[in-house]
Amino acid sequence: MELGKIRIGIDIGGTNIELAAISDTAESNADVKHLHKAYPYGAVCEELCIFLRNSIDELLRSIDESYEAVASVGIAMPGALDLVQGRILHAYNLNLHNTEIIGSMKALLPNTVFTLINDADAAALGELKFGALRGIKNGCLITLGTGVGSGLIINGNIYQGGMKRGSEFGHMTLKLHGKACTCGNTGCVETECSGTALALAASNAFCEAVTAKELIDRAKHGDKTALKVFDEYTESLSSAIASYAALLDPERVVIGGGVSLAGELLFNAIKAKAAQKCFFNPICDIVPAMLHDKAGAIGAAFAPTHMS
Amino acid sequence: MELGKIRIGIDIGGTNIELAAISDTAESNADVKHLHKAYPYGAVCEELCIFLRNSIDELLRSIDESYEAVASVGIAMPGALDLVQGRILHAYNLNLHNTEIIGSMKALLPNTVFTLINDADAAALGELKFGALRGIKNGCLITLGTGVGSGLIINGNIYQGGMKRGSEFGHMTLKLHGKACTCGNTGCVETECSGTALALAASNAFCEAVTAKELIDRAKHGDKTALKVFDEYTESLSSAIASYAALLDPERVVIGGGVSLAGELLFNAIKAKAAQKCFFNPICDIVPAMLHDKAGAIGAAFAPTHMS
Repeated sequence: MELGKIRIGIDIGGTNIELAAISDTAESNADVKHLHKAYPYGAVCEELCIFLRNSIDELLRSIDESYEAVASVGIAMPGALDLVQGRILHAYNLNLHNTEIIGSMKALLPNTVFTLINDADAAALGELKFGALRGIKNGCLITLGTGVGSGLIINGNIYQGGMKRGSEFGHMTLKLHGKACTCGNTGCVETECSGTALALAASNAFCEAVTAKELIDRAKHGDKTALKVFDEYTESLSSAIASYAALLDPERVVIGGGVSLAGELLFNAIKAKAAQKCFFNPICDIVPAMLHDKAGAIGAAFAPTHMS
Repeated sequence: MELGKIRIGIDIGGTNIELAAISDTAESNADVKHLHKAYPYGAVCEELCIFLRNSIDELLRSIDESYEAVASVGIAMPGALDLVQGRILHAYNLNLHNTEIIGSMKALLPNTVFTLINDADAAALGELKFGALRGIKNGCLITLGTGVGSGLIINGNIYQGGMKRGSEFGHMTLKLHGKACTCGNTGCVETECSGTALALAASNAFCEAVTAKELIDRAKHGDKTALKVFDEYTESLSSAIASYAALLDPERVVIGGGVSLAGELLFNAIKAKAAQKCFFNPICDIVPAMLHDKAGAIGAAFAPTHMS
């Protein structure tokens, strides 16, 4: 048995936990062993860590390997993290605060190397390794869901913020003096471009509760009101992409999350509109994500360490 | 005499040309030998290059050195450049287009290494080496003048765009569906935050032609209309800084250009407002530029080469 030949990644969300085992010879997602678990709702940090250890055990058994084969375990989490200390500052949707998650994991598995990474950064890193950002030196993954998540690739590596606090495309200012954002600022990209924002605009236009998916379905069926709402949405999103592209001149923008499932209706519109708005010509590629809910676990397996 | 111990930087503007000679033992701007020349108005590229060669001769004579001591000559230019080919694509205010400036310089000085760099990137690199960005890994220089210039420092180096086409903070979208920008997009940072935008807002408010400097002087004297115009300006500028800071989580933002000479009137306002708007807390430093019109020549001397 070869020592340290497997990287494990764990992507922890409020509903699901995705695990991935990646051998050093893996060349694509087809070579990755995945394991899906439901989040142990209500668990405190120590219980969550025992659950994770048991899940790693199960994953290793499924590929007939032991901990000696594990080079590292990367853990992706939502929320505000201290990557240097390996701590969760605030993960609101997991109800975990000021918690030494890496310390707790090391108490259970003292001979294993752990790293911590933001979940959106992990997803971008996953797309970089085995997905739609493969071979790209400068680009990003933008996820359009409840909020707007993002992970930035700069000079071929994940960029985790100049002060290691992250990268928040969703909280760039898109509309000066615009709507209030949950972050305390106004007019953030998230207030205009999230799936939530699309659903809100749809509900206002139809005078009934309409989800982002329903709006997209109606637009695909040619409903004029739905098409108008979606046209305004793609105006906003294309401006947000053009804004990022003006600053960083990327090669490629990858879009994931629920709204990305609109497919050509979305991509044709934002490509055409962003081409009109981008400072640099021709504009970067704008393409769909490839790995979706598997991206985070794959990226977590490759998370850089910032711990001393 | 020691070979290759001096770097020369040349910052070419539409009015002035600044040259700098920097020895490998230089530790600050006090150790740099500067030379100022007026731009040879009307010169075609070959004439400009002869003028530059003569200026380098003069600079070397002033420090009693010869070309053997020159490690490299970096040339900073405004406009769209091809850094890999060493060509000017379009430098509108110099009326130089599709011009092989590096090829022409090498024809005159075949044994000298030349590099080409965007003038705003050179200024940021100058501030990184000997100015207000010294010791910073992630930050930027923003210049508020006729337009809004910028140079980005990422991971301790100048970031010249993922596709080597530059970095344009001034053309990030700040105000969705805002005023038309010269770049073809609408609502760019430049349309709200340039000195030109400030003068325009001032002229509208006073119903007479008012320059940015006059507006600032009136605000400093407590004129209520001027203070209101400046307050709106700092609202816009602080949002633009917050937008950049959300994406890249920098350590420091350095502000130069004519509007930066407003001093505390500007810096106190944008620091307080940006602190309210920034996603990451505490916000990065926001400080004035140190090297002003000398930054570009110093940075040009350290320009990375992209030519094969």
